[in-house]
Amino acid sequence: MSDMDVISVIRTKRDKGELTPEQIDWVIDAYTRGAVADEQMSALAMAILLNGMNRAEIARWTAAMIASGERMDFSGLARPTADKHSTGGVGDKITLPLAPLVAACGAAVPQLSGRGLGHTGGTLDKLESVPGWRASLSTEEMLRVLDTTGAVVCAAGDGLAPADKKLYALRDVTGTVEAIPLIASSIMSKKIAEGTGSLVLDVKVGSGAFMKTVQDARELASTMVGLGTDHGVRTVALLTDMATPLGLTAGNALEVRESVEVLAGGGPADVVELTLALAREMLDAAGLPDADPEKALAGGAAMDVWRRMIAAQGGDPDAPLPAAREQHVVTAPATGVLTRLDAYDVGVAAWRLGAGRARKEDPVQAGAGVELHAKPGDPVTEGQPLLTLHTDTPDRFAYAAQALATAYDVAAPGTPYERGPVVLERIA
Amino acid sequence: MSDMDVISVIRTKRDKGELTPEQIDWVIDAYTRGAVADEQMSALAMAILLNGMNRAEIARWTAAMIASGERMDFSGLARPTADKHSTGGVGDKITLPLAPLVAACGAAVPQLSGRGLGHTGGTLDKLESVPGWRASLSTEEMLRVLDTTGAVVCAAGDGLAPADKKLYALRDVTGTVEAIPLIASSIMSKKIAEGTGSLVLDVKVGSGAFMKTVQDARELASTMVGLGTDHGVRTVALLTDMATPLGLTAGNALEVRESVEVLAGGGPADVVELTLALAREMLDAAGLPDADPEKALAGGAAMDVWRRMIAAQGGDPDAPLPAAREQHVVTAPATGVLTRLDAYDVGVAAWRLGAGRARKEDPVQAGAGVELHAKPGDPVTEGQPLLTLHTDTPDRFAYAAQALATAYDVAAPGTPYERGPVVLERIA
Repeated sequence: MSDMDVISVIRTKRDKGELTPEQIDWVIDAYTRGAVADEQMSALAMAILLNGMNRAEIARWTAAMIASGERMDFSGLARPTADKHSTGGVGDKITLPLAPLVAACGAAVPQLSGRGLGHTGGTLDKLESVPGWRASLSTEEMLRVLDTTGAVVCAAGDGLAPADKKLYALRDVTGTVEAIPLIASSIMSKKIAEGTGSLVLDVKVGSGAFMKTVQDARELASTMVGLGTDHGVRTVALLTDMATPLGLTAGNALEVRESVEVLAGGGPADVVELTLALAREMLDAAGLPDADPEKALAGGAAMDVWRRMIAAQGGDPDAPLPAAREQHVVTAPATGVLTRLDAYDVGVAAWRLGAGRARKEDPVQAGAGVELHAKPGDPVTEGQPLLTLHTDTPDRFAYAAQALATAYDVAAPGTPYERGPVVLERIA
Repeated sequence: MSDMDVISVIRTKRDKGELTPEQIDWVIDAYTRGAVADEQMSALAMAILLNGMNRAEIARWTAAMIASGERMDFSGLARPTADKHSTGGVGDKITLPLAPLVAACGAAVPQLSGRGLGHTGGTLDKLESVPGWRASLSTEEMLRVLDTTGAVVCAAGDGLAPADKKLYALRDVTGTVEAIPLIASSIMSKKIAEGTGSLVLDVKVGSGAFMKTVQDARELASTMVGLGTDHGVRTVALLTDMATPLGLTAGNALEVRESVEVLAGGGPADVVELTLALAREMLDAAGLPDADPEKALAGGAAMDVWRRMIAAQGGDPDAPLPAAREQHVVTAPATGVLTRLDAYDVGVAAWRLGAGRARKEDPVQAGAGVELHAKPGDPVTEGQPLLTLHTDTPDRFAYAAQALATAYDVAAPGTPYERGPVVLERIA
């Protein structure tokens, strides 16, 4: 039996060996062509999840996935490109204010984004709540929007890293999503194929994130920074807190509304803080260290780009956002200090209310989601609104409320509470 | 997400948890029905291979596979039933003399057997080299042959443990064959569904076996003895040596010829020794401790049953056996003592000569195989025949000879060599 048959490749990793560059190139290509079957790749994915891959294996695996499809090229643009990727969280609407903000400061921001699956929302789902806005653009349309407005948020084409597309769908149904080498190579193969010059990674940590511990998040971040750097992409990662939702909303139109508040100079402090922190990193990485994102946000320049960017993709920035037909208020059970509001539980509640989808074919409700009236550290009074649940399908209220049953803690009045920073660590 | 969806089952085992009885029943049934996909079951199989199953999980897994199909019932027979299963080796033709021998001593011996895959031969392939002999019998035919001759060797029907049939084919192509819990439950689910009252397991150890170490073989044997006992089958296991081939032949018609020699009172010492050891265990387990298998072998009673058994399935026990069209002799490279002749290498050579198949649809050559002219411990003279290779496709000689390049060692004349026992351990 040769080393280049699939059973030998699976056995190598199963028996804790190192895959050779030739084995990796062969298995990714054969899987993309259909010569390696799904049941064989899922056995290999489980062996990788349990036995790991070293840095050289992950680098080759990523390169093979990039090589499975086409690569884009932004080198013809007048501005330097800066891209951001978040590993996904609850209430993570940061791309919405961030892309126009960084564009307003002189970079070109191509955001090829995805849809939500599970308890985390998707950027495209959020923007689709803006009346008229279209996620699917041809490559020519995308480049035109990017060139004329400085920022574009749209669906990634099928041509980028098709091996990753196929493998991601397989991992999703075989319990093999949570493998750091596979997560890192999946994210980075798409980002590198996309052709950005610089990339800032927002790696979420906490109950609402895929990475539950700082240690896992650090490993994922270092792996991705290494992969980007090896491929000539200036890459930086921030580990950021996802123990509690970002901002005061989780849901599609609800998050667009909050993003517009930030662009108008207001909005929740944590969303503003993270938006500015990521903007500074992106501008630094893009070679624009003298840009002033605070001024661009306060002065309305970012809002101007937002309006042009939405309009360029068919959206009406002045149209009223859709609202859910029904609301249900969850009240504070006692007077005191809110000391915990769990991101995962809020994410699951928003998902159950209709903001997310169970299968990738499912539609989402534009107006559904959860609105927060207090964040950890805030004083609350018994009976005051704590959360408002929004949905078009009120028979889901009870199911959503179940997810929230143990989502929050209220401590005695005067209990001291120290708010932690949003940005936990920086890895370059 | 409920505990009874496939992702939760996979995650439980992936994260080193214990599967509940309900999870096991559900996943085996859902896989048999097609509601759990091959790529999901292969990820679970890899997780089981790497993280193991405890005794309770293996017992439930086996019971669920038995429950996936029909069960046979031999309780209507006048004689007690005794069955044997070998985990597979090179030159392992023991079923051929053993089944008629045990039948001649008063037990009923139903041997539902398989075909060879890889370097180990299959009992049905061997018997099909007897002109006219048919492996496929209806249940009625099988019971009639068993009732009238005392022994039957035939293909297992599709109705027994269909979950195992499906899972075995999947494991074969996904690098998940070598998992002791899955090997044990696969063998035992078929044997228990078959309805035998007693079972003797021949667990092979050494280069030519699936289990390379005594420790692994012991674990597999104990697991299977426990499973059989728990299901009311009197079960005993012998660990037997498979460092070197059994007897002096590996190949289909070659092994039938050797088996007939044993039934005629001759044949190689190791084949006779193992046949008698297994016969005694089977007769004990069947409640016939006073039977005398040595006498039945020497006196011709076993040969009489063999002739009736072959004839009852359309075979002609007097017809000449097919022979390969071409032979190639491998000679001893030096004068001295043969100290090693590797079972795996001989098995691979026989397979390459045409005795085995690469895919289960492939035909086998009846005459192909390897004939041994010396065994470890025998003196050899430089240039004397050591092995004769037989095939109908002489272009395979070089490919087979490659497998034999490092298969044997010849030490200086007079080097002491102690032959080890064939039976290494008994586990009851």
